[in-house]
Amino acid sequence: MLARDALAALDTADPFVSLRDAFVLPDGVIYLDGNSLGPLPRATAGRIAAVVEQEWGQGLIRSWNDAGWIDLASRVAAKIAVLIGAEPDTVAVGDSTSVNTFKALAAALALRPGRHTILSQQDNFPTDLYVADGLARLLGGEHRLHAVPGDGIAEAIDPQTAVVLLTHVNYRTGALHDLEAITNAAHARGALVIWDLAHSAGAMPLDLAGSNADFAVGCGYKFLNGGPGAPGFLYAAPRHHGGLSFPLTGWLGHAAPFAFEALYRPAPGIARAVVGTPPILSLAALDCGLDTIAPGALPGLRAKSLRQSELLVELVAQFCPSAGFVLATPAERSRRGSQVSLHHEHAYEIMQALIEHGVIGDFRVPDILRFGITPMTLRYADLWDAATILARIMDSGVWREAKYAVRRTVT
Amino acid sequence: MLARDALAALDTADPFVSLRDAFVLPDGVIYLDGNSLGPLPRATAGRIAAVVEQEWGQGLIRSWNDAGWIDLASRVAAKIAVLIGAEPDTVAVGDSTSVNTFKALAAALALRPGRHTILSQQDNFPTDLYVADGLARLLGGEHRLHAVPGDGIAEAIDPQTAVVLLTHVNYRTGALHDLEAITNAAHARGALVIWDLAHSAGAMPLDLAGSNADFAVGCGYKFLNGGPGAPGFLYAAPRHHGGLSFPLTGWLGHAAPFAFEALYRPAPGIARAVVGTPPILSLAALDCGLDTIAPGALPGLRAKSLRQSELLVELVAQFCPSAGFVLATPAERSRRGSQVSLHHEHAYEIMQALIEHGVIGDFRVPDILRFGITPMTLRYADLWDAATILARIMDSGVWREAKYAVRRTVT
Repeated sequence: MLARDALAALDTADPFVSLRDAFVLPDGVIYLDGNSLGPLPRATAGRIAAVVEQEWGQGLIRSWNDAGWIDLASRVAAKIAVLIGAEPDTVAVGDSTSVNTFKALAAALALRPGRHTILSQQDNFPTDLYVADGLARLLGGEHRLHAVPGDGIAEAIDPQTAVVLLTHVNYRTGALHDLEAITNAAHARGALVIWDLAHSAGAMPLDLAGSNADFAVGCGYKFLNGGPGAPGFLYAAPRHHGGLSFPLTGWLGHAAPFAFEALYRPAPGIARAVVGTPPILSLAALDCGLDTIAPGALPGLRAKSLRQSELLVELVAQFCPSAGFVLATPAERSRRGSQVSLHHEHAYEIMQALIEHGVIGDFRVPDILRFGITPMTLRYADLWDAATILARIMDSGVWREAKYAVRRTVT
Repeated sequence: MLARDALAALDTADPFVSLRDAFVLPDGVIYLDGNSLGPLPRATAGRIAAVVEQEWGQGLIRSWNDAGWIDLASRVAAKIAVLIGAEPDTVAVGDSTSVNTFKALAAALALRPGRHTILSQQDNFPTDLYVADGLARLLGGEHRLHAVPGDGIAEAIDPQTAVVLLTHVNYRTGALHDLEAITNAAHARGALVIWDLAHSAGAMPLDLAGSNADFAVGCGYKFLNGGPGAPGFLYAAPRHHGGLSFPLTGWLGHAAPFAFEALYRPAPGIARAVVGTPPILSLAALDCGLDTIAPGALPGLRAKSLRQSELLVELVAQFCPSAGFVLATPAERSRRGSQVSLHHEHAYEIMQALIEHGVIGDFRVPDILRFGITPMTLRYADLWDAATILARIMDSGVWREAKYAVRRTVT
């Protein structure tokens, strides 16, 4: 039996406990949704106010030079590169994750001209599948998306596979792919891999360079704490830069944007992945989010996340032994991202009740309660409190109230 | 001879003079660059602070429902639709103008399957040409970009022309195309037209619906005052919605984004143009920018802009009669956007000197001084002051100082 005191003692001994002070967190809330939207760093409001009032308001157009707006995306990209174990000058920031996925897919297909299949998983994050299918239809001919059920992805790579598109951490179950093993399996069969790091960048140490990764994309607003709709990013390995060709050829990816030449000449290396003018306010917020994460802390934070995940599972079992929850997240540490997902027939209503009682997680169709573990802000004692609130909701049956069944726009 | 008093009297009589109070404008600056980056509306800083501190900081993920983030893009789009004379539910907001151009081009090509040429002008804004060329290369086969020199665009439309891509107001000279005439000429030959409204949306009345326009794209950070890198927009005429197919098929353009279905089902109508999660901070700033523009004021503001443009030309001739400036902007009102452009052999150095002396415009290669006319904030007396500063710079030869020849990253 776990006791709250024992968990509070873990907080006292936690070397990361003070990281929480770098964030604004509302009173009365246990936030288990940093994997959907990271919390607000304390430094962000002041930075954004300065960007708006000083840089834009006073500096006006001059701030592209004087405030360094023109380089902001590449400075942010360099911070992301360190977090994901990428080589210097291999990451570009801008556009949404969906648009970056499109760019990476087209670039990968261009590097494998004799092959026409994009291989993915049926339970990949839908936008990845939609984008892949949209690109295959656009290109026509033999191009196609082949999405396989279950985990047999490595076995499905065949001589027609140009590129494998996988999300490193499954958005529903939290299952973690072996990035290096699948990359090597793909390479052995002549295919490339694009990793969607939406749920892993900033959540765990990554070593794209050491893993022989080809391409990666990711999201700025989850574990990178960049704020709602923060720009995404795109990684391409240096060995692919020579033949790197993106379908979206915007002026800011030109070798000389302000020469306004009539013909497109791609900027050197990854800089050609940039398309149009980036959203500076949202980009500045992403910059602040990245500053909350010390790359050297990621191994320790990963260990804390795994331990917190296990404790949450244990606490749910302890407090709600017969409520019908079934663990959706793999038990093995090496196969887990930074979340705990539970199946329950009434997951939607239970999650709505939890949110109203101050425990914020996500519902995911069809029957998943998803709890993100963000070890920079989450205390061990929070897990005990969350589990006891869940137990009260289940024991009282309050989740059966009609209001919790009302469907909201965003679930 | 124009006198400053006469210009100041125009300000006194100007029904729009108080609109300036809705903006933050630095002291000692005459801002003639609202066509590159619109000035900061007074309301924006407070709105962004609320989005950051309350909606993100306190509301966290709940703000997608509770603060209406999920609908913000469509509410912003509805405001833009009114400004450009578009039908309801025909505008989508998100992504950069470059990405929207890509989407519009692919959708237009799909509507003209037997035709393979994208027709444009050699002096169109380069990103439009780059994006068109990039898409043509991606599609392969007979697809090509054909960019014609000069103004013979209508004559160049032939049976292979699928779509004409034009910027309504030329970014360098300020020359204005006849939107309706070219649209009709294209339709008569079976082609569609995409209008890039970067330099006209918010600057003049537009009537896309009444002009039989097919598609349009535009920019949020110029005359719409949305802040640096504000999201762009895309318009598609209702008659094309039935066959509307975009190549970027992201999850937020799905008919049921939170059903997380494995197959893409496009949302009804223009909503399918949305791709990934929009940058909420930048989008909220765009919303504030749009609130500065009363659609009913656009005819009057357009008249003021044309008069101010003519006065600026007259003042330059009066104060700098032999300085070597040659007008690049068409003289006829019906052929002019909302800017005055001057050729000068030393345009770069002169513009740098002007900026240092508080008159902010743009340099554009090879030899253009560009002065944006933004009648919501620009006073008639400002024109007199700007012209006298220009005269002092030319008469003193101060622009010849070496520091003004130093090339900056952003010009």
